[in-house]
Amino acid sequence: VILTVTLNPALDVTYRVDDVVLGRTHRVRDVTTCAGGKGLNVARVLASAGFPVRATGLLGGRAGEHIRALLHSDGVVGDFVPIAAEARHTIVLVDGHTPTGFWEPGPVVTPAEWRAFIDTFPRLLSGARVVVLSGSLPPSVPDDAYATLIAIAHEAGTSVVLDADGEALRLGVRAGPAVVKPNQSELATVTGRDVTTAGLAVAAARELRRGLPTAVVATLGADGLVSSTRDGDLTARLSTPLTGNTTGAGDACAAALAAGLLKAQEWEEIMSDAVAYSAAAVTAPVAGVVDPRQVQRLRSAVVVERL
Amino acid sequence: VILTVTLNPALDVTYRVDDVVLGRTHRVRDVTTCAGGKGLNVARVLASAGFPVRATGLLGGRAGEHIRALLHSDGVVGDFVPIAAEARHTIVLVDGHTPTGFWEPGPVVTPAEWRAFIDTFPRLLSGARVVVLSGSLPPSVPDDAYATLIAIAHEAGTSVVLDADGEALRLGVRAGPAVVKPNQSELATVTGRDVTTAGLAVAAARELRRGLPTAVVATLGADGLVSSTRDGDLTARLSTPLTGNTTGAGDACAAALAAGLLKAQEWEEIMSDAVAYSAAAVTAPVAGVVDPRQVQRLRSAVVVERL
Repeated sequence: VILTVTLNPALDVTYRVDDVVLGRTHRVRDVTTCAGGKGLNVARVLASAGFPVRATGLLGGRAGEHIRALLHSDGVVGDFVPIAAEARHTIVLVDGHTPTGFWEPGPVVTPAEWRAFIDTFPRLLSGARVVVLSGSLPPSVPDDAYATLIAIAHEAGTSVVLDADGEALRLGVRAGPAVVKPNQSELATVTGRDVTTAGLAVAAARELRRGLPTAVVATLGADGLVSSTRDGDLTARLSTPLTGNTTGAGDACAAALAAGLLKAQEWEEIMSDAVAYSAAAVTAPVAGVVDPRQVQRLRSAVVVERL
Repeated sequence: VILTVTLNPALDVTYRVDDVVLGRTHRVRDVTTCAGGKGLNVARVLASAGFPVRATGLLGGRAGEHIRALLHSDGVVGDFVPIAAEARHTIVLVDGHTPTGFWEPGPVVTPAEWRAFIDTFPRLLSGARVVVLSGSLPPSVPDDAYATLIAIAHEAGTSVVLDADGEALRLGVRAGPAVVKPNQSELATVTGRDVTTAGLAVAAARELRRGLPTAVVATLGADGLVSSTRDGDLTARLSTPLTGNTTGAGDACAAALAAGLLKAQEWEEIMSDAVAYSAAAVTAPVAGVVDPRQVQRLRSAVVVERL
């Protein structure tokens, strides 16, 4: 089974409205809610692709209950550590133009609650071959949270996929996860390098993994993926780039990386799948779900090159 | 005791953000929540002014639980009829310019749930000398809802203050509440008359109450109030108009009218209090609460004139 960890889940709310005009009040035509936070998106992608998955993290309040219920109806088994504070909401206004988003700050997690998560983590890992650590940390969780969880996963013999940013990424990488998946801007920030071409990105990825057992897979948007692993360096992209809603593409990529570790695939195959999953998410009618047949079709359009 | 009825309560959420830019995502700096819906605002004003008050209405889901908890912490006793659907949210974006609001549609109330409210209403009215019927109806509650409740209140010997709009107002007035409180635009719509001056508004108010035992008190914004009652016609306003947040002024006015009925005051006194409460709400640091000392001070600045 694949375990996904979401320390800062969100209740994602989408408001469909007529044209938004600042300074006015608007009737909301339609409200949709979805369990959000990157780790939960990864879990949903894996569940929709037929992989056994379990979701954990920190969850509190009425919004937390709502998230739990939504996950359940998405077919994802959740096992969360409770916290007192309310899970955050995100609100996205959709009016036919570019959506406008509002991100609430995450809940305050007490030191005792964070300690409870760390103490519970070995039990949560039991039976998990792969764990995905994804997304932002709530403001009060320490920056070395992912580093701590990676050390525990190593003791349990569970492979780790890390998708984080800022200090959590920098400290997490040093703990040597199996795979780290920065996007272009995260890779630039964590290495302090120019990564504006695939070649530069591969060089930065190679530097990031120096001295570590870690594979680096960086997402470059429409330019696809680059990877640097102990097996060498690869680029992978669609022969013809797609357009669509890119919101869930990074999480679909992380899901494919976790699935690849679970199946102990070769890196060429993992990279091909990661591009196909990302592209399937971009073209999916519903965010955060991929159609396995669509993944199958897209796989044949992926070009993987060894550098 | 004064009973307030809120058939379409809301969880009012305010997001403080830096400048809103359409098509971007924003970090929310601060989230505040408040039990909303006009009847609950009236209840909170009455509680803050020291009057015995009880709030009822239809309430469902997690948002409903949240509203219940917020009301409790505001010192308002709630006794709601449960419904299955979620109470609505309202979201207001505050960025230092004119706030931008988003109103979710109300919950779908089943015929059985509405019937349950009607059946419970006599019990809810017991001990209530005055009942305030305030605000919008959820989409699926019939337009004659307030008319039905007014008939039941009459049987119970409870005086009614009605603050509604559209069909609910038109049908409600015909049921002969003790007081109806339209604003300028509602008065114009329900009478089909020009009400752009105090004189015209009084004439429209007089027409609205024709053949009814009903007093009409219309709010005219900075121009104060006009009333037409069996005791004659009055205007009331501050000698010097105030500026501030006018959102809660109408509900503070309705609260003062209910308090006036409870105390069986003369109309001059009721109108003076109604202006003072509205003005206190406009100048209050927190929406929907009035400071009784501030009301006391403002009362001396109210000019009441008999027409």
